[in-house]
Amino acid sequence: MPRPLGFTGARLDRADQVRTNEAAFAAALADPRARCLVLDGIDFVPGEGGGLCWEPFDPADDRAVMLLGLDEAGVPHFVREPAPSQRIDARSRTVMRLLPMLSTEEAALYGGARSLVDWHARHRFCAVCGQPTDLFRGGWGRQCGSCNAEHFPRVDPVVIMLAECEDRVLVGRQPGFPPGFFSALAGFVEPGESLEEAVARELFEEAGIRVADVTYVASQPWPFPSSLMIGARAVAHDPALTLDTTEIEAAMWVDRADVRAALAGDMGAPFMAPPPLAIARFLLEDWAA
Amino acid sequence: MPRPLGFTGARLDRADQVRTNEAAFAAALADPRARCLVLDGIDFVPGEGGGLCWEPFDPADDRAVMLLGLDEAGVPHFVREPAPSQRIDARSRTVMRLLPMLSTEEAALYGGARSLVDWHARHRFCAVCGQPTDLFRGGWGRQCGSCNAEHFPRVDPVVIMLAECEDRVLVGRQPGFPPGFFSALAGFVEPGESLEEAVARELFEEAGIRVADVTYVASQPWPFPSSLMIGARAVAHDPALTLDTTEIEAAMWVDRADVRAALAGDMGAPFMAPPPLAIARFLLEDWAA
Repeated sequence: MPRPLGFTGARLDRADQVRTNEAAFAAALADPRARCLVLDGIDFVPGEGGGLCWEPFDPADDRAVMLLGLDEAGVPHFVREPAPSQRIDARSRTVMRLLPMLSTEEAALYGGARSLVDWHARHRFCAVCGQPTDLFRGGWGRQCGSCNAEHFPRVDPVVIMLAECEDRVLVGRQPGFPPGFFSALAGFVEPGESLEEAVARELFEEAGIRVADVTYVASQPWPFPSSLMIGARAVAHDPALTLDTTEIEAAMWVDRADVRAALAGDMGAPFMAPPPLAIARFLLEDWAA
Repeated sequence: MPRPLGFTGARLDRADQVRTNEAAFAAALADPRARCLVLDGIDFVPGEGGGLCWEPFDPADDRAVMLLGLDEAGVPHFVREPAPSQRIDARSRTVMRLLPMLSTEEAALYGGARSLVDWHARHRFCAVCGQPTDLFRGGWGRQCGSCNAEHFPRVDPVVIMLAECEDRVLVGRQPGFPPGFFSALAGFVEPGESLEEAVARELFEEAGIRVADVTYVASQPWPFPSSLMIGARAVAHDPALTLDTTEIEAAMWVDRADVRAALAGDMGAPFMAPPPLAIARFLLEDWAA
């Protein structure tokens, strides 16, 4: 793999044995070395050197707490729910502009923390019975005080794929994309289908093409809000497109020279490629190489 | 691939364009050819020929309805929520004994229907605000009548993997497994990690081994209740094991002869292999071949 994928490479030990053991979790909370990630809502706040910003863990703070993990020296790293005065806007993309300030490991750690904090904020009530729930398992789940149902953070698998036909690949743009921007087609995996079936279904639904020979390429978490992006390739034998224009505004087959020009940011490239953090860019790099 | 994986191969067109278009959905409900899957709670009821059992769609029935899809002739296939008198026990495995009565396509169709019906049964309330929610999008989501939040069926990605070391692979057994039964190790993917990272984390947490070179093998939906099983292999350089005995009661390295004997059901095999529907069996077959 030529470079780590965006939002991968976090170095903390997630320490499941601490999350699930009340005494060990209490000891982590009481550790004088413990640190807490500074967030503004669910966005990170850049530190002086440009990275993530940490503060000493304050036991007097009564906001709910989640254990992100332990570093190599065993220092517990936590994150807290936002203060009631902080608004969360999970659809905001302002943090995207700040992400290049983070190292690969920091972006991965932040991405996981963001997904977790955002999930708690949107899951305060029990989906089974409607009553309030409380954090448990070191912040990696919620339990209903009324019916005892347990709820765990969502991870939503998404297939994202390049269909290949006659030495060209298919890129498309959604209505909300910036001008000139094209990416790999993608969609959520549904109950009752494999990854390979989801790839074939999405390409047919969105672009009207039938594919075979779906192959896995790579994966990355995508914390907007909690997707697991699963990158694939597939082979189409007929390049004729029928677009679902509610999902895809435009799509086109591009060859390796087109893709290389887009990746290089050439002014004459036929499209603008996805940013380095996105697995779509990795899929294009991998295919062009 | 030597054979289709369990719970894959459903033939119905999921018809997203019908789910999301109110007029098209109303037309499907009014189609005189429409059929409804017969369930007992969330278990299927075998038909006379041994397959799934369908009944004409009854517009007078007021139970909530979900569109499974359209067959090749455009006939809409639905499933309904269970009647209030029917108990749902998502942990029941009685249906496992009946599954061999279904064809591959029927098992896949039933698996998706089971996950969907079970999700609705456990998500009647809004996790954001605690108020009741209603079905929308042809039964493929719920919307809150109070805060308007939209909720979609969960698909929980799980990594399941064979670690390989010195031409042997690692199999383990959970405390609740039948006697002699061993399988591939597995665990839920968490927010903030790739599939490859989840494989490495789970193998270290459960068996104390460090792996590299994680490669994807295959995937299958697993409707107990809504997992997406993602099968992988990984390479370990040191076979020393440290088991997390709350998760894994026993684990052992087995060679190709052991695996072939287990797959063949030999009396002298060192373990009992997973059943044909499980991707764990496919991983063992794939490795032994």
